[in-house]
Amino acid sequence: MVRAGIVGFRGYSGAELVRLLERHPSVEPVLLEHRQDSEDRPQPIQSKQHLRVQCTPEAVKSEQLAVVFLATPAAVSMELAPAMLQAGAKVVDLSGAFRLPDAASYSRWYKEDHTAPELLAEAVYGLPEFCRERIPGARLISNPGCYPTAANLALQPLLASGVIDRTAGIVCDAKSGVSGAGRKPNLKTSFCEVTENLTAYSVLDHRHVPEILMVSGLEEGELSFTAQLLPIDRGILETIYFRSRNLSSAAALLEIYSRQYRKEPFVRLYAPGAFPDIRSVAHTNFCDIGVKFDPATGRAVVVTAIDNLVKGAAGQAIQNMNLMLGIGETEGLL
Amino acid sequence: MVRAGIVGFRGYSGAELVRLLERHPSVEPVLLEHRQDSEDRPQPIQSKQHLRVQCTPEAVKSEQLAVVFLATPAAVSMELAPAMLQAGAKVVDLSGAFRLPDAASYSRWYKEDHTAPELLAEAVYGLPEFCRERIPGARLISNPGCYPTAANLALQPLLASGVIDRTAGIVCDAKSGVSGAGRKPNLKTSFCEVTENLTAYSVLDHRHVPEILMVSGLEEGELSFTAQLLPIDRGILETIYFRSRNLSSAAALLEIYSRQYRKEPFVRLYAPGAFPDIRSVAHTNFCDIGVKFDPATGRAVVVTAIDNLVKGAAGQAIQNMNLMLGIGETEGLL
Amino acid sequence: MVRAGIVGFRGYSGAELVRLLERHPSVEPVLLEHRQDSEDRPQPIQSKQHLRVQCTPEAVKSEQLAVVFLATPAAVSMELAPAMLQAGAKVVDLSGAFRLPDAASYSRWYKEDHTAPELLAEAVYGLPEFCRERIPGARLISNPGCYPTAANLALQPLLASGVIDRTAGIVCDAKSGVSGAGRKPNLKTSFCEVTENLTAYSVLDHRHVPEILMVSGLEEGELSFTAQLLPIDRGILETIYFRSRNLSSAAALLEIYSRQYRKEPFVRLYAPGAFPDIRSVAHTNFCDIGVKFDPATGRAVVVTAIDNLVKGAAGQAIQNMNLMLGIGETEGLL
Amino acid sequence: MVRAGIVGFRGYSGAELVRLLERHPSVEPVLLEHRQDSEDRPQPIQSKQHLRVQCTPEAVKSEQLAVVFLATPAAVSMELAPAMLQAGAKVVDLSGAFRLPDAASYSRWYKEDHTAPELLAEAVYGLPEFCRERIPGARLISNPGCYPTAANLALQPLLASGVIDRTAGIVCDAKSGVSGAGRKPNLKTSFCEVTENLTAYSVLDHRHVPEILMVSGLEEGELSFTAQLLPIDRGILETIYFRSRNLSSAAALLEIYSRQYRKEPFVRLYAPGAFPDIRSVAHTNFCDIGVKFDPATGRAVVVTAIDNLVKGAAGQAIQNMNLMLGIGETEGLL
Repeated sequence: MVRAGIVGFRGYSGAELVRLLERHPSVEPVLLEHRQDSEDRPQPIQSKQHLRVQCTPEAVKSEQLAVVFLATPAAVSMELAPAMLQAGAKVVDLSGAFRLPDAASYSRWYKEDHTAPELLAEAVYGLPEFCRERIPGARLISNPGCYPTAANLALQPLLASGVIDRTAGIVCDAKSGVSGAGRKPNLKTSFCEVTENLTAYSVLDHRHVPEILMVSGLEEGELSFTAQLLPIDRGILETIYFRSRNLSSAAALLEIYSRQYRKEPFVRLYAPGAFPDIRSVAHTNFCDIGVKFDPATGRAVVVTAIDNLVKGAAGQAIQNMNLMLGIGETEGLL
Repeated sequence: MVRAGIVGFRGYSGAELVRLLERHPSVEPVLLEHRQDSEDRPQPIQSKQHLRVQCTPEAVKSEQLAVVFLATPAAVSMELAPAMLQAGAKVVDLSGAFRLPDAASYSRWYKEDHTAPELLAEAVYGLPEFCRERIPGARLISNPGCYPTAANLALQPLLASGVIDRTAGIVCDAKSGVSGAGRKPNLKTSFCEVTENLTAYSVLDHRHVPEILMVSGLEEGELSFTAQLLPIDRGILETIYFRSRNLSSAAALLEIYSRQYRKEPFVRLYAPGAFPDIRSVAHTNFCDIGVKFDPATGRAVVVTAIDNLVKGAAGQAIQNMNLMLGIGETEGLL
Repeated sequence: MVRAGIVGFRGYSGAELVRLLERHPSVEPVLLEHRQDSEDRPQPIQSKQHLRVQCTPEAVKSEQLAVVFLATPAAVSMELAPAMLQAGAKVVDLSGAFRLPDAASYSRWYKEDHTAPELLAEAVYGLPEFCRERIPGARLISNPGCYPTAANLALQPLLASGVIDRTAGIVCDAKSGVSGAGRKPNLKTSFCEVTENLTAYSVLDHRHVPEILMVSGLEEGELSFTAQLLPIDRGILETIYFRSRNLSSAAALLEIYSRQYRKEPFVRLYAPGAFPDIRSVAHTNFCDIGVKFDPATGRAVVVTAIDNLVKGAAGQAIQNMNLMLGIGETEGLL
Repeated sequence: MVRAGIVGFRGYSGAELVRLLERHPSVEPVLLEHRQDSEDRPQPIQSKQHLRVQCTPEAVKSEQLAVVFLATPAAVSMELAPAMLQAGAKVVDLSGAFRLPDAASYSRWYKEDHTAPELLAEAVYGLPEFCRERIPGARLISNPGCYPTAANLALQPLLASGVIDRTAGIVCDAKSGVSGAGRKPNLKTSFCEVTENLTAYSVLDHRHVPEILMVSGLEEGELSFTAQLLPIDRGILETIYFRSRNLSSAAALLEIYSRQYRKEPFVRLYAPGAFPDIRSVAHTNFCDIGVKFDPATGRAVVVTAIDNLVKGAAGQAIQNMNLMLGIGETEGLL
């Protein structure tokens, strides 16, 4: 039985980590108190009590934590990651702190200085479908952003196979549930501001864009990305548009995905003309992909869906932990 | 005081017509019973009682209806429009029956034969911002679809000014509240199927596409349009992506709209970087437009919002009626 | 044209006041900046601009404000009300500051000291259906709480007529939309905490209880009141249960209400067995009432609905202003 | 490995049964096609395929189904239960068909004749917390209604201990998510009718009332029960009000529950003043209970929450199956 610490366990991603690890056959969660910035929910008297300790290097050692999950804002992750690694734990960071290749990129997109740049070279970007071989040896995994996870799983096979006409540009219109914004109270995520509404934000300049460019090799000018806040709790749907000159049919498009993902446990495909919706993937670690292609005009649409708290955060973090620790990749996730 | 008949007053667009006409200073609504396919809501004992009569040519005459609104499915509109015109009323049809220029187009997109093709040439497409001069003399107004209203108001000035690179294609990613699908019970619009969900539908082949092509002059291959069903009651947000080679700034983009719409009572613009959301327009007849442009790469995004039941249906229908009957265009709508 | 100042115009009640006053034929709203604790929403360039001035006694005079609405927390209302009155304006306070008869009651229920107790005797409780005659002469109106408005309109006629068996007690199970909690960000009103949820709060000790006791004359032990937070923006539904030994039928119950409210413009009744829901009253100043009675066992249920932001706040405040200033009671409200 | 047939697997309770049984270590689900009245959802190509066969007595035998779940309307259950039993399967019926003790009660509350009255005497009401000993020997389990499950778990210990003043009556104000109404499209459960709304229905005459009376021993006149439709997918919250003359404190109230439920795996209690909400129990088989008591006046409130599709339907049905087949009671449910 491996012990895994969770910092930020009151937040939405952290709470999802706890829930998932409770069902994991090989891992036991330990709650690490850092700064309590969020309230506990009311608990039944008999509810399962996990071990709670202060998040210190000493606790990592005394509790023999093999891995620590940082479900914290980037600034906190940059502060805690070095200390946790030093104390001997592996680290899976769910923030954006270690996703970009260098401190300059981080500063541009996150509008703040990077305070642990010495770890950037070591951090492994944890998108298992494309970086699986680098994960087992890693000490520090940077868990991908929710939007880039869905976008890269949709785009990467198509870009590799050369069917996208990059000169026409790619559009990724992304919609997310509110839990992606975290649990900290904020006017923009207050119920009355979100219900019966849809709001576009970070139009063309979302901080997840560089992750998509980094994995896909696209230039910034080739991708138009806009995020929108849905009046739902969890889930992401991305509608991706591109043009192709050398694709014969939707079946050929699907075939590219089938070849790429036939052994992947967490990517599922739909027959041409059928599309996943957010309910298809809610509370699962799946990324679902559906396609449409019009051979007469070359227009293509790919719809991809994930649960932002699972494949977009806690689930993928556990997938990475499993790979890192040599546990079966799907354990605790099916 | 002009009398206006409403067929389909129990539906969402019809009920909105009644609500709006109750506040209209120059028009009195008369409810026309056709086939009752929907239940009345519970009513307070003292609620305002409008005149209700059977929808017959005789009633049009005896009740001296100057205009009849058809808030009915296309098949019913094709049946009723000739009879209502014959009986001497002007007609504003809210369905798709008379929007396309010929019966062949109708058959292709609506998957059924047109049963009143003799009226297609006469019908005037009622998008006042671009067809205002033809409306006063019309007998039959075809009220635009909700999606095309928002899309055409966003695209038309830009296409006319030549700033869009049409070779790269235009993407219109549209999201709508559920009331756009009508009040008839249907699994796809049941609460439990829609809440906490987002569903893409009619990907690349929505029946509103030909209306956008017709008004904008775009070729089918130049436009990629996808609709998505939002878990909200009312409202549409469309995120429109294109590329430009000859635009200098977002301000220049906004200037095109300002010139076009400076006298329009129902189109509102936002400063660059600010965007309307659905709440901006809910329960109003406004179409709101916000823009973003990246001069370095030529990527542009336009976000446009309307209330699908008002500017996308009942409100625009009243705007058309006002113009048709020589009433002030904004009466009952501000 | 009367000028009315609004403090707290960015909050939900304050914004509703502005919206309603924009349509009021005799009143012009003036926005009074106090401490800006909330963000403005994005605005179209052409949006209607109301006069905005700092909320000072001088502004009351220079802008000739006949009345000032305080859509502010109780602590702010206690601070501002004396100053605004001093400067010559009448005041309609939407907070709980002046609703209870004495400072001791205030301290018990609001858990803070009253800082303007000298105004408590003068303040008139503004429930027009039961206090209409005192309102015209008042300088300071205390606008009723949302829950007590619905509860008192339902209970008062029945208690006066003696049909309720008070020894068995009365239950008022109240449910409210989230806007009742104000616009200030708070974990309890964050989208992800509220959606797909229902939460009971202030069970038996809600601070609105003493207002119900005060108007109805009930003892605390005779009323069990619980509030619940609904995943909706606006609206209140209260389900009220009591027992009767001397009521013959639901019709007799309805008759009591009919007699009481036959001249009231904002109370509507339903035939026995029909009930209002929240949609019946959303965006209106109506209080709707439906009844059920089982003569065999004496069990009675009354369901009452209001929009918490209109009859429960801004609408009733305007109704009070109309009465106070000698304007027609329903002006701007129908 | 036991095989369990599911009729009505496309409905909400049926689909939940399939989901839960997929995780059950000792049971394999078999989908029984009856009359397909609902659409399948879009499925990924690789999704898990369960065996699907026509629902016939022959299939029960050939597929060796130990148990058949009827997640069907009462009329269908009355038709299928005799045939399934005859074919040798045990039956767990999720409808109201076999819950009431005799055909006359059924006719009164369900407004239709009972077509399989010969099974009423044999059917065992499957509320394990109070009928556990009768379940193992049963052939036919009648799975309790969702509202009565929550109400009876809250009321039964208190009535048995004599702390409720029955002369004052008990109020149970119940609120349910929409999935409780089934998947068949219906105006009342259409998205636009439910969102931003709350509707009271079956006031004092809900068909679940006789189940509460049957288990609790209350007279009809002692209980006032009203149901309300919440704008959420799943979950029930019931707020129960009563008066007590012989209760000393909330702690004493809680102690009654603690004694009753200390060995129950699916009933959880909250410290006095803390209450469960719907999120506390969503997607679980728990029934959570919180209490408040005012010793000065004798007023008591109990709040109880379940997931209507789990403890209120599919989860409890599996709990019953486990007991019936001698499997551990909590298998597949924690």
